[in-house]
Amino acid sequence: MKRLTVLTGDRPTGRMHLGHYFGSLKNRFALQRDYRCFFMVADYQALTTHGDRTEEIERNVREMVLDYLSAGFDPEQGVCFLQSQVPQLAELTTIFSNLVTLPRLLRNPTIKEEMREMGLSARATYGFVGYPVSQAADILLFRPALVPVGPEQGPHIELAQEVAARFNRLYGPVFPTPEAMVGELLVGTDGRRKMGKSYRNAIFLSDAPATVQEKVQGMVTDPARPRRSDPGHPEVCPVYACHRALGPDAETAVAGPCRRAEVGCADCKANLSVKLNAFLEPLRERRSHYEGQRGLIRDILNLGGCEARIEGGKTLEEVKEVMGLGYRGLLG
Amino acid sequence: MKRLTVLTGDRPTGRMHLGHYFGSLKNRFALQRDYRCFFMVADYQALTTHGDRTEEIERNVREMVLDYLSAGFDPEQGVCFLQSQVPQLAELTTIFSNLVTLPRLLRNPTIKEEMREMGLSARATYGFVGYPVSQAADILLFRPALVPVGPEQGPHIELAQEVAARFNRLYGPVFPTPEAMVGELLVGTDGRRKMGKSYRNAIFLSDAPATVQEKVQGMVTDPARPRRSDPGHPEVCPVYACHRALGPDAETAVAGPCRRAEVGCADCKANLSVKLNAFLEPLRERRSHYEGQRGLIRDILNLGGCEARIEGGKTLEEVKEVMGLGYRGLLG
Repeated sequence: MKRLTVLTGDRPTGRMHLGHYFGSLKNRFALQRDYRCFFMVADYQALTTHGDRTEEIERNVREMVLDYLSAGFDPEQGVCFLQSQVPQLAELTTIFSNLVTLPRLLRNPTIKEEMREMGLSARATYGFVGYPVSQAADILLFRPALVPVGPEQGPHIELAQEVAARFNRLYGPVFPTPEAMVGELLVGTDGRRKMGKSYRNAIFLSDAPATVQEKVQGMVTDPARPRRSDPGHPEVCPVYACHRALGPDAETAVAGPCRRAEVGCADCKANLSVKLNAFLEPLRERRSHYEGQRGLIRDILNLGGCEARIEGGKTLEEVKEVMGLGYRGLLG
Repeated sequence: MKRLTVLTGDRPTGRMHLGHYFGSLKNRFALQRDYRCFFMVADYQALTTHGDRTEEIERNVREMVLDYLSAGFDPEQGVCFLQSQVPQLAELTTIFSNLVTLPRLLRNPTIKEEMREMGLSARATYGFVGYPVSQAADILLFRPALVPVGPEQGPHIELAQEVAARFNRLYGPVFPTPEAMVGELLVGTDGRRKMGKSYRNAIFLSDAPATVQEKVQGMVTDPARPRRSDPGHPEVCPVYACHRALGPDAETAVAGPCRRAEVGCADCKANLSVKLNAFLEPLRERRSHYEGQRGLIRDILNLGGCEARIEGGKTLEEVKEVMGLGYRGLLG
């Protein structure tokens, strides 16, 4: 039986952190054995916000593939490729551009929020406003059954589903409906919002043990527990959020004692540092193992590019055919 | 010495008419000997307005290449290709999308007018609003010195010039500034607006002699000349506009006698019919000559696609290199 496909991607804008891991990486690398997995390094999409800093991009791409490898990407199983190496993605974006109205894009809550946060509305580029269209093309070119994404990506998957349905209705049944596989949202060390590199509240997968310890010590805790003798509210504490992400015993081992004021925040943090470093240790080992293999990333990306172009070429050929752009009579 | 390049294109949405001829075809085919000419059949761009009628597209493409051939395109000199056969165009569009703001696009007077005319504003697709960005990519991929266009295309050439300047400033000097070569605007047979297929006021290059005669007879004339004895105002008369487009002697041979009421509108129209059919006769002959050559259009478009991809590939490689997306260290 043919294996179903999984597609995900990330923009190479810097190192990956625990928010990425629990939001998506964990899910996707767990699927490698049972699904045909395509992991896209979204370098063209990085231009939507980092177009003026492209001198960093080659290094960021390299670091991201190392992050993937350290977090469990198995190059024997999955396909990892660069978006800019697969021209069919840009072609499908061109085609999909005519299936989505501008008002529909401007209603997208994620776009709205990002525009607000970056003070972008007047300076919003055409590419930024339309990146969900391009993302729909990234997804649908591979006709995946599952798309593991972080919780904020929900609206983009909905758009991809809409585009698939609209294309199929207008031209013919080329695209299956991709399902989102939504990961956990992890709050940042400041407890104020989700973990994000640009918020400076992230613990990176490649952080050294001492850095992890330091960041954990600096984490915000339950503000309603000024004294050790006060009962805590773990559900509002980022230290607890991290405990919970790390394992199923957090409720009994961490939340209970906190609520009963049996454990202080300092000890709870020390405990988290130990757990986090134990969790990250195998990632660090894999990173240093793969870092030593000269040419490995080159081979992964070159081979991945070929596989993605072959897969993408098949879809695009079908797309053009049903649209009447196959020109068999004219060119064949 | 290397020949300079010319790039133009048209959307394959139906037969070409005299407005196309005097607006752009005449200029561009005159350049074939001295410039390296790329003529693009903009089939992807046709989707911005004709995406729901793609079953006609293959026939329209064929007819358009025949219109080109009949109007003077010499396949031994110029390159004619299909937009959808050159993936680098879509890639460059993706890159340029990040160099143009959405407000800048929505200020474009041509986009504004087209949106108004088609009642599109709420239903305007992302692709429609952004087609000038895609057009900038179509132009700049070939790094032309000259772009022969109709008068309404001015704002699009300005955008292409802006995009070239912005790219060069941000990343490096890849693009020369393309200059517009603006043709004549021809008014339609109704005298109300420019000749346009969708306005039903067009005389097509492929119209039969009797059809031309009939359309000319039905043309609106100077409304301030109800009687033959009234002096005419040729500058407001579409019959005169057509006389003028056809030759330099129109002022003395047509406008003078009209102003002096020496010639009536019926005779003036009869005269125009004869001149128009004499003008169109060699076009008809070339059309029927080329129509008989089996496989010619296939060969033109297949060879043109190869040449356009090679040329486009060179530009895109330079583009990626200066942007830091060449990945020589990573992939090479």
